[in-house]
Amino acid sequence: MKINNVHYRTIWEKSEGIIQIIDQRKLPFRFEIKDLTELEDFETAIKHMYVRGAPLIGVTAAYGMYIAAANASDSDICDTLSRAAERLIATRPTAVNLRWAVESQLSIIKNTSNLDPIKEKLLINARRITENDEEQCRMIGVHGLKLIEEIAKKKNGATVNILTHCNAGWLATVDWGTATSPIYHARNAGIDIHVWVDETRPRNQGAKLTAYELAHEDIPHTVIVDNVGGHLMQHGKVDIVIVGSDRTTYTGDVANKIGTYLKALAAIDNNIPFYVALPSSTIDWEIEDGVNSIPIEERDSDEVDFMEGVAGSKVEKVRIVPETSRSANYAFDVTPARLVTGLITERGVCKADKESVLELFPEKK
Amino acid sequence: MKINNVHYRTIWEKSEGIIQIIDQRKLPFRFEIKDLTELEDFETAIKHMYVRGAPLIGVTAAYGMYIAAANASDSDICDTLSRAAERLIATRPTAVNLRWAVESQLSIIKNTSNLDPIKEKLLINARRITENDEEQCRMIGVHGLKLIEEIAKKKNGATVNILTHCNAGWLATVDWGTATSPIYHARNAGIDIHVWVDETRPRNQGAKLTAYELAHEDIPHTVIVDNVGGHLMQHGKVDIVIVGSDRTTYTGDVANKIGTYLKALAAIDNNIPFYVALPSSTIDWEIEDGVNSIPIEERDSDEVDFMEGVAGSKVEKVRIVPETSRSANYAFDVTPARLVTGLITERGVCKADKESVLELFPEKK
Repeated sequence: MKINNVHYRTIWEKSEGIIQIIDQRKLPFRFEIKDLTELEDFETAIKHMYVRGAPLIGVTAAYGMYIAAANASDSDICDTLSRAAERLIATRPTAVNLRWAVESQLSIIKNTSNLDPIKEKLLINARRITENDEEQCRMIGVHGLKLIEEIAKKKNGATVNILTHCNAGWLATVDWGTATSPIYHARNAGIDIHVWVDETRPRNQGAKLTAYELAHEDIPHTVIVDNVGGHLMQHGKVDIVIVGSDRTTYTGDVANKIGTYLKALAAIDNNIPFYVALPSSTIDWEIEDGVNSIPIEERDSDEVDFMEGVAGSKVEKVRIVPETSRSANYAFDVTPARLVTGLITERGVCKADKESVLELFPEKK
Repeated sequence: MKINNVHYRTIWEKSEGIIQIIDQRKLPFRFEIKDLTELEDFETAIKHMYVRGAPLIGVTAAYGMYIAAANASDSDICDTLSRAAERLIATRPTAVNLRWAVESQLSIIKNTSNLDPIKEKLLINARRITENDEEQCRMIGVHGLKLIEEIAKKKNGATVNILTHCNAGWLATVDWGTATSPIYHARNAGIDIHVWVDETRPRNQGAKLTAYELAHEDIPHTVIVDNVGGHLMQHGKVDIVIVGSDRTTYTGDVANKIGTYLKALAAIDNNIPFYVALPSSTIDWEIEDGVNSIPIEERDSDEVDFMEGVAGSKVEKVRIVPETSRSANYAFDVTPARLVTGLITERGVCKADKESVLELFPEKK
């Protein structure tokens, strides 16, 4: 999508051995591009959220595996890759795509007896994962568009109000986004839309990233604090909720940014459709009970205690919790399937239950 | 309650014609006391939230009416007071105590034919409202304590985890607080408690005020962002929710700080008791349907766009929403009675329905 009218992806190859990303920690205050040339760069980029969003984390890890191999001597390559895999997987415990992408790269070694073309094959596989991600996100938009079209029709063309949480935007993927892809497709189809953007404390990815990308794509939107969604739903100001997912069980439980569960509760209480947009790489085919089994990352309490913003022309961090109090920082929550109207995947929309998911992905039966 | 081991109330008479308050906009970073000597000072103090919290707003308005009279000449006094009443009521549209306290003062004029003792009577009435508020808050604590005692008993003395939203603490009243009064009473009774403090965006009164007052009273607590409560409830980490109220209909619908409704939804979804602590002056005896009839204040979007905190030794405001996006700032929401386990009032605990409320306040039948 566009930033200042120039088309970007979130990750690309600059030249041999140099992968570039948008340093998303700096957005929306600064637009900076970062080179990743060593495994450590990829670890740092994922762990410290230069890149974030399950799909983009997966793509970044795939390129990280390639760079680790590219920098290794041929005799070391297998050991190097298995160590790189461990280190990359350890950076973020909740995102299932990370493990998926790393394992996809590991399977390349297993299926190659000749060491020589491994590096090339890892690069080709990283590119394939990248292109797949873009195509999956595009298809999520194609399928999600139908849901928005139906609402627009029912409202006789009046503005369709969409609420989203956190950033499941193109900045969380290679392009298009997951939750935002139906939004961009709706705009392209000429539907009158408006987006309520949850600011999404503690890291404020809604206010910082979703608002930023919607503004650069000229999509009407309003930032709200995370407390507001329920009130808007009570008063008919939300027609549909679309969020992303960091991990979705094949039974339909959705791990996503902390606070998603509260919006799902409000949606069901007000009879508003609550959809989760996700590429199938985000589906966990093993866990049955998401609420009790998906590990929830507890992050540094500094993210709660401090807030970053602009004062004059400087980016500053201010302490907002008194030093005499401690704070806790749970990063995700799990929305049980019973609250989810449907999943929007690259293959189509299905109900959030085992039968419907397996019908869409019969090869997993 | 205590600040730095000194006992304070939130409002007091310094000397004739000078009312003092704690300037709560400066907390927790600065402790400053402010003189109010003219009607304008009271309007500013209420409108710009030097004082906040329904009960404290009421008390402040009562003193404001007294000061307006004290500064008027005898011939003007009736006109002055009716203009002062209008101006004070206009400062904050949602809080019902404000109107209640102002009307209580207006009734003094109506019942006094001799102009001379009016000023004194207004002062006496302001004092009475102040003492009543403290006594009501104390009694809310006495009744609410029983609920916490029961939970402690069921848990065999293990820590009772209480979640609260915004600041319905002593800083929102004259002393004790509403939602915090049972907490302070439980601590005084030797019960092992821990409080989850919602930071409560946009103004962060939870992180700024509730955390501050609990820290100064040595009560174990943890600040969380507003998105976290649902997750904690799913995992058995909350035993009871206690919040305050800006206005409660006699049918049990509760207007309180934006986001309260979301916590009530999570509580009911996880079978956790959700109580609202309120003095009966907060009850609206006319409105039947709170969700559709209580006006919800929309405040300046700057409160969403900017965040105040400490950088080094300076209090600074940083912009956290990009200038290219607009934001909206709804200050309250209404939790329907069906989600409320009970109301904790100065007369006792009752169910959140018309019959139970009128049983506790039979004079309103």
